[in-house]
Amino acid sequence: MTNVNRRIVLAARPHGEPNASHFRLEEARMPVAKAGEVLLANHYLSLDPYMRGRMSAAKSYAEPVAIGDTMVGATVAEVIESQHPDYRVGETVVGFGGWQDFAVSDGRGLRRLDPEAAPVTTALGILGMPGMTAYTGLLNIGQPKTGETVVVAAATGPVGSLVGQIAKRKGARAVGIAGGPEKCAFLRDTLGFDAAVDHRAEDFPDALAAVCPDGIDVYFENVGGAVFDAVLPLLNNFARIPVCGLVSGYNATELPPGPDRVPVLMRAILSKRLHVQGFIVWDFAAQESAFLQDVGAWLREGLVVHREDIVDGLEKAPDAFAGLLQGRNFGKLIVRIR
Amino acid sequence: MTNVNRRIVLAARPHGEPNASHFRLEEARMPVAKAGEVLLANHYLSLDPYMRGRMSAAKSYAEPVAIGDTMVGATVAEVIESQHPDYRVGETVVGFGGWQDFAVSDGRGLRRLDPEAAPVTTALGILGMPGMTAYTGLLNIGQPKTGETVVVAAATGPVGSLVGQIAKRKGARAVGIAGGPEKCAFLRDTLGFDAAVDHRAEDFPDALAAVCPDGIDVYFENVGGAVFDAVLPLLNNFARIPVCGLVSGYNATELPPGPDRVPVLMRAILSKRLHVQGFIVWDFAAQESAFLQDVGAWLREGLVVHREDIVDGLEKAPDAFAGLLQGRNFGKLIVRIR
Repeated sequence: MTNVNRRIVLAARPHGEPNASHFRLEEARMPVAKAGEVLLANHYLSLDPYMRGRMSAAKSYAEPVAIGDTMVGATVAEVIESQHPDYRVGETVVGFGGWQDFAVSDGRGLRRLDPEAAPVTTALGILGMPGMTAYTGLLNIGQPKTGETVVVAAATGPVGSLVGQIAKRKGARAVGIAGGPEKCAFLRDTLGFDAAVDHRAEDFPDALAAVCPDGIDVYFENVGGAVFDAVLPLLNNFARIPVCGLVSGYNATELPPGPDRVPVLMRAILSKRLHVQGFIVWDFAAQESAFLQDVGAWLREGLVVHREDIVDGLEKAPDAFAGLLQGRNFGKLIVRIR
Repeated sequence: MTNVNRRIVLAARPHGEPNASHFRLEEARMPVAKAGEVLLANHYLSLDPYMRGRMSAAKSYAEPVAIGDTMVGATVAEVIESQHPDYRVGETVVGFGGWQDFAVSDGRGLRRLDPEAAPVTTALGILGMPGMTAYTGLLNIGQPKTGETVVVAAATGPVGSLVGQIAKRKGARAVGIAGGPEKCAFLRDTLGFDAAVDHRAEDFPDALAAVCPDGIDVYFENVGGAVFDAVLPLLNNFARIPVCGLVSGYNATELPPGPDRVPVLMRAILSKRLHVQGFIVWDFAAQESAFLQDVGAWLREGLVVHREDIVDGLEKAPDAFAGLLQGRNFGKLIVRIR
């Protein structure tokens, strides 16, 4: 075993799109597990849009990553040394190991995985934070009912793909928005969405309206921007909008030009009696076991499908992450570290 | 008894502020009650901000008033002729009699009033649609908890004044926003609000922040515009925003200049996990008896206070209504028709 820990630290805060200059690959001494800790070898790193927020100095619901600190992120890891009573060497866990080869943990935020029950990478996607985001946001806030129309963007991603599939299970129509014909075909043919619309097509707003003849009852918001603009006029009275992300704006360096359309949005909220509610997955932490039980069973029984986009090598993480914000990935983006 | 029915009809749709030219006082034949109907003599007419929406051609949650039609509005009226089995001559009712001396009704939307139980004009204010708007919106969506801070604008009006007083009864701090020192003093001294802020003062945003040292947990939105702008940065995580009106924008003829701040609002909704929900009072029609029982009891016991601003003469209604949209009224605006 090496005694070097490769890690990717935040080198500079991006103004706009992140690129290689904002990250730095460093080699450090392998960390040591003290009493009550485990030493983890990270096998898979999850890349997720929320990380863009951590690269900025602005405080959001979580603290920013400090310049020079290792980028945060969920990992699937192997316990290679344990001074913790609950974990043994050789076990596989999911936790927040960060963008690096090795990490120590005192056990907080760790969850043991059973590699026989499901592929371990699912703990970063459909059976992890993204899946739970879809499950909790859709069921608690979206509350789709039989016959209603549910629209979700970034629909081939790990959140959107499960939103649509759960909507179907609840008897609703699922309409997915994605970038390009290949992703749209995947939504229809593999995930079983009722319709898919390419947001890059010139007639996107009309195409969306055409596949929502009865309006939109639930819009699961994870992108914002032009997609939201196309959705707003189609929303029905009493529509619900769980807001879990606004990825289209994460690299924005300034606000869009005027006029200020806040009054348009507020008037729609009033006259259509919309329910718009922001959430992050941990607001529903108490529902984690229900989520794992439900979605785990659906996955085992083949009732839900997931797709992964795996990139090889920790050093590829910065470029893969930049691509995630541009929609270059196709499925849940994961870096295979070793 | 006269056989002339004075009525105020919509003469033209306003572009911007309504004025006398948009209304016309007409004299018509007194209507006649047919089988199953009552003839009502309107005594009091309620003037409410929603009427501005009815003057515009744009469809909202209700149909616009047609040009030449009598302006809609709630009235307290006396039954002067009855061919309806449920109503007798001499009874006092509240219904939608409109801006006129007389109206016929088939009984739908009528409610009998007991003049001994409460002054009949309260059926247009604290015990009517405005009071029920405050009660249902605050309790169903706002859900104030002990120790939380509830902010409401147009706070001396019939909705805002009850919002603050119910917030106090639920153990929350009530902060009212109103125009001018006299109204602010009334909020503090008569209605028992914990603080009052004058939105016309130059340092309004700072003054609001100063009286909300623990942030804002519930913002009952009935005005929008500059007040909302001052509230947004003060909202706490998980704040609730029932949206029942946007009166500051009802006369707007164009959107405010840019930049487009929709992304700012959506980001606040996401990162603070705000719950923003529009409603109209009839969405909660099933709660009318609970409302009447609760607020009726509080009013009899002197636990809530209300204030009326009564204007004499049907012909004054257009000017009084224009003043309502400018905040010239002080309390629930009512026209005494006879």
